[in-house]
Amino acid sequence: MISDSTIQSIRNFTAERDWERFHTPANLAKSISIEAAELLECYQWMPEAPASDTRHVQEELADVLTYCIMMADALGVDMDDIIMGKLAKTANKYPVEAVRDSFGEYESRHLAARESGENAQYHS
Amino acid sequence: MISDSTIQSIRNFTAERDWERFHTPANLAKSISIEAAELLECYQWMPEAPASDTRHVQEELADVLTYCIMMADALGVDMDDIIMGKLAKTANKYPVEAVRDSFGEYESRHLAARESGENAQYHS
Amino acid sequence: MISDSTIQSIRNFTAERDWERFHTPANLAKSISIEAAELLECYQWMPEAPASDTRHVQEELADVLTYCIMMADALGVDMDDIIMGKLAKTANKYPVEAVRDSFGEYESRHLAARESGENAQYHS
Amino acid sequence: MISDSTIQSIRNFTAERDWERFHTPANLAKSISIEAAELLECYQWMPEAPASDTRHVQEELADVLTYCIMMADALGVDMDDIIMGKLAKTANKYPVEAVRDSFGEYESRHLAARESGENAQYHS
Repeated sequence: MISDSTIQSIRNFTAERDWERFHTPANLAKSISIEAAELLECYQWMPEAPASDTRHVQEELADVLTYCIMMADALGVDMDDIIMGKLAKTANKYPVEAVRDSFGEYESRHLAARESGENAQYHS
Repeated sequence: MISDSTIQSIRNFTAERDWERFHTPANLAKSISIEAAELLECYQWMPEAPASDTRHVQEELADVLTYCIMMADALGVDMDDIIMGKLAKTANKYPVEAVRDSFGEYESRHLAARESGENAQYHS
Repeated sequence: MISDSTIQSIRNFTAERDWERFHTPANLAKSISIEAAELLECYQWMPEAPASDTRHVQEELADVLTYCIMMADALGVDMDDIIMGKLAKTANKYPVEAVRDSFGEYESRHLAARESGENAQYHS
Repeated sequence: MISDSTIQSIRNFTAERDWERFHTPANLAKSISIEAAELLECYQWMPEAPASDTRHVQEELADVLTYCIMMADALGVDMDDIIMGKLAKTANKYPVEAVRDSFGEYESRHLAARESGENAQYHS
């Protein structure tokens, strides 16, 4: 789990250093992407080369989670609430009976959405 | 917080659809990066254009968190443990007395690390 | 521009080190994301803090481009061809007369696509 | 290659829509990361599931390249110059005689840099 005690420790870490002013939602969104890529780097050349050691992977995952916690704080949202809300929406999009045992069924729903998503290009 | 109940709901969602076999650490690392970028997209053209609406931002953050929870599960780690472990390490790297009120002090520590980090190019 | 001479230099760099076997399209896709995040890191705390210096930004952009060149090679495609092909498709999606002077017109087309894109969650 | 003609077509596309004001280096850096993740999504569940079709992969790679071209323009740099400059620097970091046939040699150089890079956490 992620306890309220952990969340408070992160708040204290930030406040002690007077770093709150940098933690805008936009900057935290950038930070989450940056740390996610450092986690991805642990698997950059797999399977042709091995993954990074476990300790390093755990540290990079911790970094992503820490910035996510900071962002939930900046947005004033409860993480359980937003996760469970989205999970319900996703469960409806991918009903068990439709997608279980059928990658094709998942894929057609996914590709249909992707095709529409490709409209969003070179926007300004 | 992120409760054990939420974590179990995510496990159930995955198991119902028989999707565990896709959730390798490497695939989950890719998924975290992919969702992080969808969250970043909410702020793509800021400040010249407005950010996405709050509901959408929350849904994208929920997606990142959900994949992080799946990855912690796949790695068999407790999220409180890895977060608090990394926070202690980071607190040592950026002592309060050194970095508070001094972006320059933070920046020199950060850049020194970055310069070294630039050795890691085009590796295979 | 990116000349054929530059592309050949990158091929030589890879071949000299016997690194072709790691340069699968999947690994190169990961690499492009990893380097893109290092470029993004140059702007992590803007505008509250300054961006990285110009030289560093250029080096990170060069890294992204280099991996893109390697990927085009791995896919056996010509970069001019794929760019111009996609540009034509995008020009149709965002006709000048519709989007010029109207962020709202762009935004509605973009959001409509995004809403559909949100179907693609937690897939395996 | 990427010809000057292609680069000019991209400039025209942007100018026709009056979109230059959104194309700041910071926004373009975000855009490159966002498109890189859409390319990565083509390989999200590999190898357990197949990659996206070739046409889709090429379109996503085209998107990354297009934003890179826009960013080089915004920075006022020539892509051949910055790529060749960085390639020379990287060739020195990974001498052929050291890294060829020795993943261990590459890995130790890479990990040494990575360890230093881990200092850059939770900065503001």
